[in-house]
Amino acid sequence: MASAPIKFGILGCAKIARKLSRAIVLSGNAAIAAIGSRSLEKAVGFARENGFPESARAYGSYAAVLDDPDVDAVYIPLPTSLHVQWAVLAARKGKHVLLEKPVALSVSELDVILGECESSGVQFMDTTMWMHHPRTHQMKDFLSDSTTFGQLKSVESNFSFPADKAFLENDIRVKPDLDALGVLGDAGWYCIRSILWAADYDLPKSAVALPDAVLNDAGVVLSCSAELQWQDGRAGSFRCSFLADLNMDVTILGTNGTLSVHDYVGPFQENRATFSTHVKSGSVLEHTVTTELPQEALMVREFSRLVASIKFGAAKPEKKWPTLSRKTQAVVDAVKMSIDRGYKIVDVTY
Amino acid sequence: MASAPIKFGILGCAKIARKLSRAIVLSGNAAIAAIGSRSLEKAVGFARENGFPESARAYGSYAAVLDDPDVDAVYIPLPTSLHVQWAVLAARKGKHVLLEKPVALSVSELDVILGECESSGVQFMDTTMWMHHPRTHQMKDFLSDSTTFGQLKSVESNFSFPADKAFLENDIRVKPDLDALGVLGDAGWYCIRSILWAADYDLPKSAVALPDAVLNDAGVVLSCSAELQWQDGRAGSFRCSFLADLNMDVTILGTNGTLSVHDYVGPFQENRATFSTHVKSGSVLEHTVTTELPQEALMVREFSRLVASIKFGAAKPEKKWPTLSRKTQAVVDAVKMSIDRGYKIVDVTY
Repeated sequence: MASAPIKFGILGCAKIARKLSRAIVLSGNAAIAAIGSRSLEKAVGFARENGFPESARAYGSYAAVLDDPDVDAVYIPLPTSLHVQWAVLAARKGKHVLLEKPVALSVSELDVILGECESSGVQFMDTTMWMHHPRTHQMKDFLSDSTTFGQLKSVESNFSFPADKAFLENDIRVKPDLDALGVLGDAGWYCIRSILWAADYDLPKSAVALPDAVLNDAGVVLSCSAELQWQDGRAGSFRCSFLADLNMDVTILGTNGTLSVHDYVGPFQENRATFSTHVKSGSVLEHTVTTELPQEALMVREFSRLVASIKFGAAKPEKKWPTLSRKTQAVVDAVKMSIDRGYKIVDVTY
Repeated sequence: MASAPIKFGILGCAKIARKLSRAIVLSGNAAIAAIGSRSLEKAVGFARENGFPESARAYGSYAAVLDDPDVDAVYIPLPTSLHVQWAVLAARKGKHVLLEKPVALSVSELDVILGECESSGVQFMDTTMWMHHPRTHQMKDFLSDSTTFGQLKSVESNFSFPADKAFLENDIRVKPDLDALGVLGDAGWYCIRSILWAADYDLPKSAVALPDAVLNDAGVVLSCSAELQWQDGRAGSFRCSFLADLNMDVTILGTNGTLSVHDYVGPFQENRATFSTHVKSGSVLEHTVTTELPQEALMVREFSRLVASIKFGAAKPEKKWPTLSRKTQAVVDAVKMSIDRGYKIVDVTY
C-alpha cells in the first residue's frame, strides 16, 4: 500500500462487527482505531475478544468514536432505525461511512444520510459484501457477452434461512422499532441488489409483492416474495424468508445462456467460489474463482482505497456506491408499499 | 408380462409421436397396432420411418384408427383444440386414452373428455412423463420426511427453452386456433404439475400471474410467470417461456431442507438422473437414480398395466390420473384468467 492505513471506528458490538473487524485487519489498507458501545465494559470486552491492537480505543458511547480525531471512517452495524442519526453525525464529523444494510427504512431517510455525506465530502458505501468478490466480476463478464448469454430475460434470486425461536422472538430484525423492514431489508436487500446487478442497474418500472407475505404480530415481514418488471420485458423475481431452509440461489436467464450460482450472498468456502453457465444446446460448465481474501476484506479494501484517495489525494467520493444503495432502497420501498397495499403493482420511483 | 401386450393406435404424425412410438416398443407390455393421419401417405411414411411392425396398420384418417377392433388404446398428440373431439370419440369406441398435455383448453372441456372416459369405463392418463421416472419417487421420499425436509414452504419451478423464428411463426403452440394456451399449456403445464406434486396435490386457494406475460399478436402466451398460494402459507411460483435459454430447474424449500433438480421435465441422460438435497447446516448431497427404461417408456408401461387390468381383469380405471390432469388444468385456467384480467388474483376452483 502506498499510503498509511485508513483507521476505522466501529459503532456498537453487533455480531456482524466481529466479521468486519477481521476484514479490516485482513484488508491490508485499513486498521481498527476504536470501538464504541453504550456500555464501556462491552466495548472493552469486544476489543479484547476480537484481538484489537493495543492502540485501539474502547469508548462507552458511539459519540466518543465520532469525536476521536484519529478515526477516518466508521463502520455502522447499528439497528436500521438508528442509521439516520449516527450516519449523519458521522458525516458531519468528517468520518467516511460504511453502513450496514438495509441502509435505511426508506429512500427519504437514506437521502438525509447521502445528502450529509455529499456535503461533507465523505465516502459512503453499504456492506453488500458479495459485490466485491472476484466471482461477481467474472459472472458479470458472462452476462455481458451478447453472443453467449444474449439478452437478459429473467432473474430469480433467493435468500432464505431458518431462524430459530430465539431469533423470531428477540432478534432486532423482527422488531418494528429497530428493523421495521424485517426480512425484506435483511435477506431481501441482497436479492434485490442481485437483480439490479444482473440488469446493469437499470431500475425496474414497477414492483409487485406476491400474495404470500408472512408478517409477525408486530407487522414485521418474516417472509415475502416479489417481482420487478422492466419496460422492455425483463423480469426479476425473488423470495426472502426467515422461515425456510438456507438457500442463496440466483438463476439468470438470457435469450441464449443461463447463469446459476448457489451461494451468491456468501460463498460456502472463503477462498474459492463457483458458478455454472449454460449456453444454448451446450452442456453446463462449472467455473471456480479463487480469492486470497474473503469478500468482506475486499469490500473494506475497496472502501479504504476510495477513502485514501480522498484523504491523501485530491479525489472526490465515488458516487457509484451511494447510487447503488439508493436504487436498492428504492426497490425495497416499492415492494414494501406493494405488501402494504394488498399486493398492488407499484411504480418504482427514483 | 402375464397378459398380451396392450395395442396402441396413434392419432397423427406429430413429432412427439416418434418418441412415444419408441416408448411403446420399449415398454414391454404394449405394442403399436395402428397409426392414422389425415394423409395415408404420411401415415405410411411415419410407420416406415419409425420401424413399426409389419402387423401395424396405417390409415388415412383418425376415425379409422378408432374403428380398428384390434386397437385397445389411443395415444393422441393432436393440437389441443382437437382433444375434445377425438378423445371423446375414442372413449365412445371403448379405446383407453393417453392424451398429450395440455389435455384441454379449459377444465370445462376436460370434463367432457373425463365424463366420456368414465361412462365408457376407459383409462385416462396425460403424458406428463417425468411423473413416471424413478427419480420422482425418490425425490418424493425426501419431501415426505418431516424430520429432514420439514414442512413445505415454497416451490420454484421453471421450464423455458429458446424457440427459433420458425417455431415462433409456425408451431402449433403459437397458433390461437390450435393451442391457444401457448407456453402456459405447454411448458407451464409441467411447472404447475411439479408444484402440485410437491404440495401433495393439495389445490392452491389462489393463483396470480406476474405482470410480465409476453403474448404474440394473436394473443397466445409466449412467456409468463405466476404464483400459487395455499391457505396455510405455502407458495409455488413458476416461469415458463419460449423466449429464454433452456432451463428446467425446480427448487423446493422446506422448513429444514431443500431439494433441487435441474432437469425435472426430462433428464439430460436417459438412463440416469440426479437431484440434490440440503438439510439444515449440512452440506449439499447429490443423488443419482438409474433407470433401465426412459421415463416415457415407464409411462406407457404404467398406462398399459392399468389398461391390462381393466381388459383382462375386473379392475376399474385408476382415478388418480384423471384427477391429476384436472387439478393441473384447473390451475392453468386460473393463471390464464389472471393474465386476462390484468394480473388479478384469481381463486382456483375445482
